[in-house]
Amino acid sequence: MAELQNDRFLRALLREPVDRTPVWMMRQAGRYLPEYRATRKEAGSFMDLCRNKEFASEVTLQPLERFPLDAAILFSDILTIPDAMGLGLRFETGEGPVFDKPIRSMADAKKLYVPDMASDLGYVMDAVSTIRKDLNGSIPLIGFSGSPWTLATYMIEGGSSKTFAKIKAMMFDQPATLHHILDVLADSVIAYLNAQIEAGAQAVQIFDTWGGVLTPRDYNEFSLRYMHKIVDGLKRENDGRKVPVILFTKGGGQWLEAMADTGADALGLDWTINIDEARARVGNRVALQGNMDPCILYASPERIREEVATILAQYGNGSGHVFNLGHGIHPEINPEHAGAFINAVTELSGQYHK
Amino acid sequence: MAELQNDRFLRALLREPVDRTPVWMMRQAGRYLPEYRATRKEAGSFMDLCRNKEFASEVTLQPLERFPLDAAILFSDILTIPDAMGLGLRFETGEGPVFDKPIRSMADAKKLYVPDMASDLGYVMDAVSTIRKDLNGSIPLIGFSGSPWTLATYMIEGGSSKTFAKIKAMMFDQPATLHHILDVLADSVIAYLNAQIEAGAQAVQIFDTWGGVLTPRDYNEFSLRYMHKIVDGLKRENDGRKVPVILFTKGGGQWLEAMADTGADALGLDWTINIDEARARVGNRVALQGNMDPCILYASPERIREEVATILAQYGNGSGHVFNLGHGIHPEINPEHAGAFINAVTELSGQYHK
Repeated sequence: MAELQNDRFLRALLREPVDRTPVWMMRQAGRYLPEYRATRKEAGSFMDLCRNKEFASEVTLQPLERFPLDAAILFSDILTIPDAMGLGLRFETGEGPVFDKPIRSMADAKKLYVPDMASDLGYVMDAVSTIRKDLNGSIPLIGFSGSPWTLATYMIEGGSSKTFAKIKAMMFDQPATLHHILDVLADSVIAYLNAQIEAGAQAVQIFDTWGGVLTPRDYNEFSLRYMHKIVDGLKRENDGRKVPVILFTKGGGQWLEAMADTGADALGLDWTINIDEARARVGNRVALQGNMDPCILYASPERIREEVATILAQYGNGSGHVFNLGHGIHPEINPEHAGAFINAVTELSGQYHK
Repeated sequence: MAELQNDRFLRALLREPVDRTPVWMMRQAGRYLPEYRATRKEAGSFMDLCRNKEFASEVTLQPLERFPLDAAILFSDILTIPDAMGLGLRFETGEGPVFDKPIRSMADAKKLYVPDMASDLGYVMDAVSTIRKDLNGSIPLIGFSGSPWTLATYMIEGGSSKTFAKIKAMMFDQPATLHHILDVLADSVIAYLNAQIEAGAQAVQIFDTWGGVLTPRDYNEFSLRYMHKIVDGLKRENDGRKVPVILFTKGGGQWLEAMADTGADALGLDWTINIDEARARVGNRVALQGNMDPCILYASPERIREEVATILAQYGNGSGHVFNLGHGIHPEINPEHAGAFINAVTELSGQYHK
């Protein structure tokens, strides 16, 4: 593999000195880019795009042509694992993901198994190694997975949900069934992320999109506990270099201390917490990634730049900050506004790293 | 008016001694009750139900026939104020509320005015006084309003939203326009809640359903500031008795200290914070209302009782707690499960008030 030219992102995750704050955007390869929409059209369905390593690499690299980003992220879906478990994933227009065979009982749960990474999910590893080759050492590649709790919400609800009624009913009345499901998922995520690391991922992020709908107690027992198991099971080094792990629970601002206790290297933050407060609470234990409200990208380039300056000043001096949005970029955003954001970080952050 | 027989709810809001923890449920008059669905069918549309004082009183009192609740809440909609401003409110099946004339510019905003409480919103005050008469002093009646920020989200987005893109774009790029809208709304809410209090409401709650989608800074500037103005403008006493004010920001657990600074008597909590931690943070400044995950009502009555016991123990000894769900009861809930919840509070809470 080509030697890594820009390791700002990896260094910041390990709180090592950098020349400026690194930056990337969640969903940076996505619908807000016309070139993405063109490739998607060519590829067919969303999963066709994920399953074709050339197309997946093409869309992963598209935002790098436009913006001086410090990391690329594997283009894939968070539901690849339940799909590989045979739950019958479909994407319905306007409805989002649907599983034809949702998990509703211990009998259903007992049939779940850790997918085979080569035969069932080999297409993801092929995408990872293709992207690594195509990046040619320019910037690091992030691998990712959904958290067990987040994956389980889709598997049990049968798709997206507003109330999470079915998974919570199971959590309250059949906790052993839910723990069984989460345990198989945690083992699957460990195997999945380790396979991505072996295929070339240089950092990994666990997306816990729905952990924030839980009480503190239930978050600890049903989401964080399994993310902790994953962190413990990961290959944390590859090719002689540390592979940092980022945990991101949307709405998890109240639980940062517990999240840092997992041994993750960095925590993702949404915008409902001030990053200075988050930094004071976690101290030097972890790096922080975030945390600009993605809606700011609807505002003018001047206002975007102002917001970047505010967040940089809030974080203050020193390494340990990866600039990002607090959630994925919205599909309606003007790419020029994304560019204004990225440029503002690259131009304004050097002063905090003297 | 008949003398109040059960003032447990009002006393707890003022942190005065009580014999047991009072309890009510957000949306306790609602779709989970077959008798509500029957009245709704008879009344016609949802707004027809709100506009008819006999029907509104009937549904308000329905849950009291089933459960030993310690408070009733006016049956109405949070969008009565923008409706009275002439924005053209409709309810679309599956889509929720829609405004035909959303507010998008300073020109639109300048046309907004404080509705006349007698001619534009008299039907709400008629419902309040009818309900007070029908309650006949059994338990207190809660009046309510949406917060300015929450009302503005619907008025600017034109209905429900997931991303709040339009109101946030206005917040970032045209803050003066948004402040103008919020200011007219705050004045309207003051007039509206004072009229409800004069008509007989014995406590009032401000529902800030969407304040939790903001950054801490934007929450302070665009939501909390206007709730503070409302608290300052309310008639806090009626008929020689204090009228307590409850502020409820869903997802506001991180900002309780600032919410208490408004001078509200009580704060509503959702379930993402432990009530013992909330109590420790706000001390004796305010009472707390909440905070059971509404999804627990999908679980078995035994499990529900266990959860009630946990939350009572977390709050601990003494007054200052009004038991409630952390959000409205879901329409699919079995009324017997709601009963198991209410009964558990009445049976298990006495020990904390010795």
